[in-house]
Amino acid sequence: MDKQNEKINSVHGGDIYSDGIFKGYELLDFSSNINPIGISNSFKENILEGIKNAELYPDIHYRELKANLIHYLNKAYITKENIVLGNGAAEIIDLVISCFKSITIAVPSFAEYEIDAKKWGCEVKFSTRSDTMELVYDDILNKFKTTDAVIIGNPNNPDGSLIDKEKFMPIIKYAEETGKTIIIDEAFIEFAYSGANSYISELKEYKCIFIIRALTKFFGMPGIRFGYGISKDNALISEIIRKQNPWNINCFAELAVKYVLRDEGYINKSREWIKEEINYLPKALEKISFIQKVYPTNCNFILCKLKNFNGSRLYNLCLEKGIVIRKASNFRGLDDNFVRFAIKDRDKNNKLVEALKDIEEAL
Amino acid sequence: MDKQNEKINSVHGGDIYSDGIFKGYELLDFSSNINPIGISNSFKENILEGIKNAELYPDIHYRELKANLIHYLNKAYITKENIVLGNGAAEIIDLVISCFKSITIAVPSFAEYEIDAKKWGCEVKFSTRSDTMELVYDDILNKFKTTDAVIIGNPNNPDGSLIDKEKFMPIIKYAEETGKTIIIDEAFIEFAYSGANSYISELKEYKCIFIIRALTKFFGMPGIRFGYGISKDNALISEIIRKQNPWNINCFAELAVKYVLRDEGYINKSREWIKEEINYLPKALEKISFIQKVYPTNCNFILCKLKNFNGSRLYNLCLEKGIVIRKASNFRGLDDNFVRFAIKDRDKNNKLVEALKDIEEAL
Repeated sequence: MDKQNEKINSVHGGDIYSDGIFKGYELLDFSSNINPIGISNSFKENILEGIKNAELYPDIHYRELKANLIHYLNKAYITKENIVLGNGAAEIIDLVISCFKSITIAVPSFAEYEIDAKKWGCEVKFSTRSDTMELVYDDILNKFKTTDAVIIGNPNNPDGSLIDKEKFMPIIKYAEETGKTIIIDEAFIEFAYSGANSYISELKEYKCIFIIRALTKFFGMPGIRFGYGISKDNALISEIIRKQNPWNINCFAELAVKYVLRDEGYINKSREWIKEEINYLPKALEKISFIQKVYPTNCNFILCKLKNFNGSRLYNLCLEKGIVIRKASNFRGLDDNFVRFAIKDRDKNNKLVEALKDIEEAL
Repeated sequence: MDKQNEKINSVHGGDIYSDGIFKGYELLDFSSNINPIGISNSFKENILEGIKNAELYPDIHYRELKANLIHYLNKAYITKENIVLGNGAAEIIDLVISCFKSITIAVPSFAEYEIDAKKWGCEVKFSTRSDTMELVYDDILNKFKTTDAVIIGNPNNPDGSLIDKEKFMPIIKYAEETGKTIIIDEAFIEFAYSGANSYISELKEYKCIFIIRALTKFFGMPGIRFGYGISKDNALISEIIRKQNPWNINCFAELAVKYVLRDEGYINKSREWIKEEINYLPKALEKISFIQKVYPTNCNFILCKLKNFNGSRLYNLCLEKGIVIRKASNFRGLDDNFVRFAIKDRDKNNKLVEALKDIEEAL
């Protein structure tokens, strides 16, 4: 394994290939934050259309794909000039960051923000959340004043918190007045089931906002590689498109956008599931004696702070029981007292809770 | 349509979305160079495996995919450290070019070489082929002496010619001695059915060679988006990987590599087809009075020079008959006297020939 790979390995969850499958057995993966309902039937049922399309170059302008996204977003003010398509959200994050000379990253957060910024020689300032994992809005504004852009998850990985819209408004107004950019990563927004939590409505009035979305998490399709950026700042959208390669979206991602985003059965079932489990798993985790704090989440993962216990030890003990959890020590701003659990279906959530109880009893 | 899109539209074949499908009828597409046999059954038969994998993040190291490529390439000296994977050959072309400050492009050739070089601020020198579409080896060597890299298609798009290995050897030796790089785009190499035409054997001895390959053309899967680079220059491979985003290859591309590259039935059938048609269509085209020259090809497309006729006019006349051909005037070094025809199956090739004969008669 080369150094680049080691680096990548150390900053992401979900590397079940290194942890298990390649050793010959399957693991229960609580490190990766994917909708456990799996892929929508509407995708599977139309797979022959995808195979047929694989024989053609995609439309270099992706007209139908963009029309399908616009239908899903359901906002009259969003046109195809406001959308840029990515080979996963990873491509969008990378390229939007490449457009700025300096950026404020609210941490802890998805590791790629910092990796991408450093790759492009973009100067980085970090705004660290409070002990209760709340954004320190004054600090963000101060750091934003000396940088070109700010990037924040909404809900944020690894803690699942949403931006407080009222407290964030002065930052948006500052960006709008100064022509700076606020990048809001909404890869998990569909789990935070009230639409009011998204910044999609604010796009109408604020050109400074750039939203990142994906099919990866809520629609359970990380293998398909599809993400997108939305902004009324058409110059920024065009700048990103100029940096992209032609035909960057594969035909199966096109197929997914066409069918899964209209699959109300899947969407409703997924929302019911998360509504149930978000009220269940955190409460169960709170009863585990070596968990000091369960941070309130708005999506499908839970950040926990451990008590007299470290994340590496818990990781190893869980792995012995066939469960992969996410050590959170490599999130900037966190240490080895933190771990992150994905929320799965009730059966699997119970297996996690049982495993943690067994570990508790054996202490 | 924005300016970027117009630019892209003007330099590639295969934009049947603008030319026809969106107007409500299907066209016979002789502008796009894809194997007309279509997608291998071995891919279709295993599609459920792809759907299952779509629910997981791909292996961030793509270990199995690289092992499958190495098996296909069948050279003991090629290891996974010698391979970089791309979301289409487009990503590989873009990123390998980004590693150099200056490059010599042998023209006419695939338009992306120049587009990518300019995007990265890479200084470009052009070495133009002779009137018989042969590389001018002395000129390439001279221009290479003041640039860091050279890029050539083998077979080359749009004319289908192969590099003359004997005449090219001094250029390879110069690159090896000076630490410069020769990029050989072999996206169409499987159509040139003698393995001796590829530079894969020369990789063993010459670290200076970087080969680009893809599933797009011979395996008939442009929608799947998969290309790769191979070189014994591990530092260059690592430099490209450092510039990439994680999980850049989708699960259906992984599936394709796993099955189609081992599908000997498909490979043999495709080679038999091209062997037949490469002996048929060029001869039929030579009989058309307004075609002055049919350039000898080694793969699935044919460059023609017209006589007292221009490519735009022929394009329009063919389009009236439901056939899209490739105007070649936007290939640097060519003008509106040139057109390119893909080679399809016998039935379609005959339809093209009949259409051209009809046009000839109506003159």
